[in-house]
Amino acid sequence: MSGVLLTGASGFIGRHALDALLAQGQEVHAVARHAGSPREGVSWHELDLLQAGAAEELARAAGAERLLHLAWYATPGSFWSAPENERWIDASLRLLRAFGEAGGTRAVMAGTCAEYAWGDQLLSEHGTPLEPATLYGACKHATHVAATAIAAQLRISLAWARVFFLYGPGEAPGRLVSGVARGLLAGEEVPTTDGHQRRDLMYVRDVAAALVALLAGEATGALNIASGRAVPVREVVSLIAAEADGPGRVRFGALPARPEEPAVIAGDVQRLATEVGFRPTVALEQGIRETVVWTRAAMRAGELPGSGQEGG
Amino acid sequence: MSGVLLTGASGFIGRHALDALLAQGQEVHAVARHAGSPREGVSWHELDLLQAGAAEELARAAGAERLLHLAWYATPGSFWSAPENERWIDASLRLLRAFGEAGGTRAVMAGTCAEYAWGDQLLSEHGTPLEPATLYGACKHATHVAATAIAAQLRISLAWARVFFLYGPGEAPGRLVSGVARGLLAGEEVPTTDGHQRRDLMYVRDVAAALVALLAGEATGALNIASGRAVPVREVVSLIAAEADGPGRVRFGALPARPEEPAVIAGDVQRLATEVGFRPTVALEQGIRETVVWTRAAMRAGELPGSGQEGG
Repeated sequence: MSGVLLTGASGFIGRHALDALLAQGQEVHAVARHAGSPREGVSWHELDLLQAGAAEELARAAGAERLLHLAWYATPGSFWSAPENERWIDASLRLLRAFGEAGGTRAVMAGTCAEYAWGDQLLSEHGTPLEPATLYGACKHATHVAATAIAAQLRISLAWARVFFLYGPGEAPGRLVSGVARGLLAGEEVPTTDGHQRRDLMYVRDVAAALVALLAGEATGALNIASGRAVPVREVVSLIAAEADGPGRVRFGALPARPEEPAVIAGDVQRLATEVGFRPTVALEQGIRETVVWTRAAMRAGELPGSGQEGG
Repeated sequence: MSGVLLTGASGFIGRHALDALLAQGQEVHAVARHAGSPREGVSWHELDLLQAGAAEELARAAGAERLLHLAWYATPGSFWSAPENERWIDASLRLLRAFGEAGGTRAVMAGTCAEYAWGDQLLSEHGTPLEPATLYGACKHATHVAATAIAAQLRISLAWARVFFLYGPGEAPGRLVSGVARGLLAGEEVPTTDGHQRRDLMYVRDVAAALVALLAGEATGALNIASGRAVPVREVVSLIAAEADGPGRVRFGALPARPEEPAVIAGDVQRLATEVGFRPTVALEQGIRETVVWTRAAMRAGELPGSGQEGG
C-alpha cells in the first residue's frame, strides 16, 4: 500500500495540496469532477463522489495508504445553506469506510470553524461547544461524529481538520478577498461593512501545507487549521486596496454590519503548532499581494475559475 | 395538511406507537418494509427507506403534518456496529427534508441514550457530553446534528427523543428480557452476569405513549425517553424467573461482567415530566408479567418475531 488519495483536487485548497504532495514526491490519486492536466506522479480519477457507488469504486481502485478528503459542496454564497451539504455527509462516510476496508490507514478530512459555537473567544478543540449555526457547519460536524466511529472500527488514524478563513490565488469569485480585489481592479467602487470584525485568515498555500503536514503526522481528532491571529477585516481590505490601486474607492460602512456575526473569529492553534509542528509562512501583506497579482492576471486572461467541490 | 407519517411502523416501538396514534383518532401513514394488516385509519406504505428516492416519494405521497421517525437498523447484537447505521443517517435526513418541503410542521425522531458519554451519573440533555462509544450511537448523534439544521431551515418543530432501554411484548429474540424469558420458558438454564449493573428500563407501550405525547406537544431539541429509575439487572432477571417458573435455573455470575459497561445508565427525565407531562404508567412487575405471558404464547404459536427496522 502506498500513495495518497486526494479528493477535491481541482478545488481551491486541493490544487495547492496537490502541489505540496507532489513536491514531497508522493504518488497521488487525484479526484475531481473534471480531471486536471496530466502531471508526473498524478493519477486522475474523474468522477462525482455523490454518484451511487462512486466512493467505493474509487477507494478500491486507488488502494491508497492515506486519504486527504477535501471534496465538498463549496459554491460561494450558497454553500452555507444548500441541501447538497447533506449529501456530502453520506459520500464522505462511504469514502472513509471503503478507504479503510481497502487497507488505508491514515486519513485527514476537512471540517470547518463553523462547527463551533461562534463567540468572542479563541475557538478551541478542547473547550468550545460544537453548536453549528449553519447547515454547512452542522453537516461537517455530523460527518466528523460518524467518521470518528468508523475510524475506530476500522483502525484508521483520523484527523479532522477544522479549516478557518482562507484566501489566495485560485479563490472563487464571491468571497471576501477575491470580491474586493476584482471590484477594485475593475475600477468600481466597493461597498463594505465598517470592517471592525476580526477574522483568522490564512493563505491558501499555508492551509494546504498544514493539511499535508497533518496527513504525514500522527495527530488524531479535531485540529484547527488557523493562524491563531485575528485581523480586522478593515485591515485586510486596506491591504487589497493598496495593491489594487483602490484606496479611494472602498466605501467602509456602506454595508450594514451583520448582527449574527461575532466580533472575533479566531482559532486556538496550539495543537497545530505543537503536535503537527506547523506555523504559517506567508505574511498577510505578501499573501494579499500575490492574490491581487493573480486576480489581475486572471481577469486579463478572462479565466477566473468558477466554484469547485471543496471543503474549507 | 393532516395526519401522521410513522416510519418503522412494524417495529418493536412502532407497533405500539401505531396503536397509540389510532387510539387518538389520528390518520396514520404507516411505513414498513412489509405492510401490516389493514386497519381503519391506516394507510400502509410498503417500502425500504434505504432505496434511492424512497424517502422523498413517501413524504410527497403522504403529505402529513407530523412525522414520527422510528425506522433504523435494529438487528439485535449487530446493530451496535453494523455499517447499515451509516446509511440511516442519509435516509433520515432525506426524509426530514422531504417532509418539511411537503409542508410538514412537527417531527419527532428517535435517538438513543448511546449518544451520551456513559458514566455513573444521571444522563442529562443539558449537561452530559455527547461522546458516543459505538457506531450506532455516533450515527444517531450525527443524524441529530444535521437534522437540527434542516429543521431550522424549513421551520419544522423538531424533537429528538433519546430512547433508553426498553422491553415488552414484541421484543425481538436476543435482547435481555426476551432472551432470559425464552430460555427459562424453554426449560433451559440461563447464564447471566452478576447483574449488579443498573439500567433505566421502560415498558415498550410507555415508550410509545411518550413518543406520541411528545409528537402532540411543542417541546423541541433533545429529550430523554426514560423512567428516571435505574433498576439492578439482577432484579429484572429475578422478576422474569418468578413469572417463568425458573428461579432455580438462573446462573448469576456465569457470564463475566463487561468492564466497558458502566455500573449505572439512567436518564434525567425532568424535560419529559415537565415539558411533555409524561410519566410511565406500567410498573416493572406488571410489564415483566405481560412480557412473559406474551413470550409464552408466542413460543407456543411458533411465531416469535424476527428483528425489524426500528430505533431504540
